[in-house]
Amino acid sequence: MEEVVILGIDPGFSVTGFSVIKQSGNIPIVLDFGYLKLSSQKTLAIRVGEFFDLFKKKIELYNVTDIALETSFLGQNAQTFLKLGYLRGILYLLAAQNQLTLHEFAPREVKQSVTGIGSASKEQVALMVSRLFPNLNSLSQGVKSDVTDALAIGLCGVWAKQQKELFSRFK
Amino acid sequence: MEEVVILGIDPGFSVTGFSVIKQSGNIPIVLDFGYLKLSSQKTLAIRVGEFFDLFKKKIELYNVTDIALETSFLGQNAQTFLKLGYLRGILYLLAAQNQLTLHEFAPREVKQSVTGIGSASKEQVALMVSRLFPNLNSLSQGVKSDVTDALAIGLCGVWAKQQKELFSRFK
Repeated sequence: MEEVVILGIDPGFSVTGFSVIKQSGNIPIVLDFGYLKLSSQKTLAIRVGEFFDLFKKKIELYNVTDIALETSFLGQNAQTFLKLGYLRGILYLLAAQNQLTLHEFAPREVKQSVTGIGSASKEQVALMVSRLFPNLNSLSQGVKSDVTDALAIGLCGVWAKQQKELFSRFK
Repeated sequence: MEEVVILGIDPGFSVTGFSVIKQSGNIPIVLDFGYLKLSSQKTLAIRVGEFFDLFKKKIELYNVTDIALETSFLGQNAQTFLKLGYLRGILYLLAAQNQLTLHEFAPREVKQSVTGIGSASKEQVALMVSRLFPNLNSLSQGVKSDVTDALAIGLCGVWAKQQKELFSRFK
């Protein structure tokens, strides 16, 4: 299997959770995780620019090969939904500029993969993520669900890639 | 008045109309206009990348100072609306990266400014644009409404900037 480094990301203008997971043999290793808060005091353009800059750096620093994203669905507010599109557009641009593969998973798919239950709560996802990565200390102390979501999304990316690899071996 | 060069843009995945208008004294001069078609055969990431590349080049070539955009509203299809957000996000990024001012106008505002009627049809907008720019030959022969829309949006940007300048002079 080629080296796979997944940037798992749960974008949002208030908080964006992210994870960088490397597949080493059969073991996923977390290289980085955290969140980005964009100040609502700044213009939208500046915030979009900061989002681009941070993830461009992460992609270069860790030689990211793939981006994993959750599919978004329209919620209560159409303008918030449109603006979420701005951040997703930046990730598509980064994928194009760095020749990354982009994976999209339905939220149900992510929950199903990580917990075995498609309708799992954020807490259940967080619990499973902390069990899958027992060494992430700050996780066991309870970290923001945006970050555990991003770790779950990144894991989905790793597993999807692994499955593809398995299938191609048996072809 | 400082030199103002407006990139007026009507983004869309099927067709993006654009205009580049320079304010020289009191006269708006069209430096460029046209449209971009993105092939649906290519991945979304590639298309977003092509959109970024084209408008990055236009901004550098014409020393663009401002971007003018129409506000988008949710139509029939939420996923199409979200994807429109991808292209808008790219414009916000280009504004941040090139220190451009970004103006947003409601569609009604654009129609009102150009034709005097907020509920004007696309044909009325096209007619007024061809009268305002009688030297654009390809316009008088009837050009795509995406392009005349982009010219109207660009003009709104020029006029908004001019008004600001006028007000600041009387302060």
